[in-house]
Amino acid sequence: MNLNTNLPNIGLPNIQSLDQSLKAALVDKINHKTKPLGALGQLEAIALQLGLIQQTLAPQLSNPTLLVFAGDHGIVNSGVSPYPQAVTAQMVLNFLQGGAAINVFARQNNMQLRVIDAGVNYDFDASTDLIHAKVGAGTANFLQAPAMTAAQCQQALATGASLAGQEALAGCNVFGFGEMGIGNTSSASCLMSVLCGIPIDECVGRGTGLDDAGLAQKLSVLRQAIDFHHMRGENVLDVLATFGGYEIAMMAGAMLGAAEQHSVLLIDGFIATSALLVASQLQPNILQYCVFTHCSGEAGHRRLLAHLEATPLLDIGLRLGEGTGAALAYPLVQAAVNFINEMASFESAGVSTKDTP
Amino acid sequence: MNLNTNLPNIGLPNIQSLDQSLKAALVDKINHKTKPLGALGQLEAIALQLGLIQQTLAPQLSNPTLLVFAGDHGIVNSGVSPYPQAVTAQMVLNFLQGGAAINVFARQNNMQLRVIDAGVNYDFDASTDLIHAKVGAGTANFLQAPAMTAAQCQQALATGASLAGQEALAGCNVFGFGEMGIGNTSSASCLMSVLCGIPIDECVGRGTGLDDAGLAQKLSVLRQAIDFHHMRGENVLDVLATFGGYEIAMMAGAMLGAAEQHSVLLIDGFIATSALLVASQLQPNILQYCVFTHCSGEAGHRRLLAHLEATPLLDIGLRLGEGTGAALAYPLVQAAVNFINEMASFESAGVSTKDTP
Repeated sequence: MNLNTNLPNIGLPNIQSLDQSLKAALVDKINHKTKPLGALGQLEAIALQLGLIQQTLAPQLSNPTLLVFAGDHGIVNSGVSPYPQAVTAQMVLNFLQGGAAINVFARQNNMQLRVIDAGVNYDFDASTDLIHAKVGAGTANFLQAPAMTAAQCQQALATGASLAGQEALAGCNVFGFGEMGIGNTSSASCLMSVLCGIPIDECVGRGTGLDDAGLAQKLSVLRQAIDFHHMRGENVLDVLATFGGYEIAMMAGAMLGAAEQHSVLLIDGFIATSALLVASQLQPNILQYCVFTHCSGEAGHRRLLAHLEATPLLDIGLRLGEGTGAALAYPLVQAAVNFINEMASFESAGVSTKDTP
Repeated sequence: MNLNTNLPNIGLPNIQSLDQSLKAALVDKINHKTKPLGALGQLEAIALQLGLIQQTLAPQLSNPTLLVFAGDHGIVNSGVSPYPQAVTAQMVLNFLQGGAAINVFARQNNMQLRVIDAGVNYDFDASTDLIHAKVGAGTANFLQAPAMTAAQCQQALATGASLAGQEALAGCNVFGFGEMGIGNTSSASCLMSVLCGIPIDECVGRGTGLDDAGLAQKLSVLRQAIDFHHMRGENVLDVLATFGGYEIAMMAGAMLGAAEQHSVLLIDGFIATSALLVASQLQPNILQYCVFTHCSGEAGHRRLLAHLEATPLLDIGLRLGEGTGAALAYPLVQAAVNFINEMASFESAGVSTKDTP
């Protein structure tokens, strides 16, 4: 369980802090648009951020892509979810057939959808339109052992980084990250608790819909697991290998790979934010590339967002995962780009400014 | 100032309460989609609402249209805005040239934009692509007299209802409502205060960007105006004529006309919500047709939404008006329609349900 966390050695991306030299010019461009100062709220902050990420006064979004990682979790054998593990594979097939919520929202917003088998406990037909990147057939039950080995954890991270890099090379500069994995709120809760130092009971929610008794059982199991491993979060990769899922680790790697390529990262709900938590503890500058798309109805997410000092765009009770929040908020990111590029200025439109006599 | 408020006599629409007979079937359809129960949050409530408005299990959105009403306000002569009155007309011309925020967001979301001169203090060229419906060249200063006559108020309401009716006849079943009018947060604040019985200082904000001294001046002026007219809100049309704007009155009429045609009403920010407040006090059932698109950064709006028991979709610091919040939230309404129509059910996708052994 002692991973080598010297990042260059394991080939993880190095994320640069954003060059701020264009900031004044971007703010000036935004402030001269025909609207009261600041009247587009968070869209103005996003327009500025995208200009800095892309180092231009005219940011553009190209080939928006949703990477949806699927994986299974041994912890489900301890009764932490009301759904059977088979649902992970069934939902992957639903994604491939176009019938899931993420399919609907990706189509609506003209986003590409890539579904990745990071570690589902099911043998998909090789011919399916799936990115086959299985690290293992589901993780081990982390109540009794680390969820994955150090080598599996590194493989998942490196594969994710490579996948994102390939999409960036193909022209994508804005990524949404989604997941499917029965039991993965349990992984996310443990990662949050150990990496943030927040008591586990403040990190646990009902997931796909536990009742009160199920919630108590889940909390009891996760408390036992944390006690068993007695980790304190000093070694991020150790914590990820111990409590993570293959889809979470691969997503964390993909986030790092996307940010390395100066892409915009659309962060979805609780699971995706837990993957970002891992990535941000490895490379804190990654947060400068993130747009937080929503605050989930899953307990723990609001607190995790606060820990990351994030201001989400939507707060409409979503708790579905799959990247749905990222897809639903994408038009707001488009709007930020469109207003900075297309709106007239006071000068060009012949509109008087504030306090003009 | 004594209007005849017997509604049938002045020809205002009569809004029916929604028939709830399809509710159980709609809820059942939503609950069988491949997602945990309730996991799409407010989108599920909107899908249900649209099904009930349209009386179908498969709601559709057609010819989405933004009606943007412009009008000037005599109260600006008392120093309630940092922008000169000329900006109202200048911004109308900006709308017609396609350079304003609402143009950008309407284009992005394929919404038709109709700009209506409800009462701008400027003579627009008759050939411009504008709906010419001027009731007067700006309202009177309501610090000293009612903003408009009873006849002007009725004309504005009836014109708005007629405009919406025409758009519905042409195939529109979802309306956004926006406005432009330097000084109109003052009208909206007074309408809110008198019609809701909330002290004026809790209804007043910085509008397009008043500083502290300007805010104090605005509050002082509006307190004087309310004291001068000493109204208590019993007669809604009296209050509207006294403190309203032509664009607000015409928008209230358009909202009534749209709801009468069983359209969906996308309610924008503080001004649009004040128009809805008027409409809802005339016809309370109108609220069943409304989707509240955002909570504005303008002080007073959050309280006004609470008064209407409304849950807005966005809360991202917008305070621009023009219908921009309605346009920006429209993709979420589309998403509600799309998921109920396009998502697979557990049965059709072969996905196990909760607690399947």
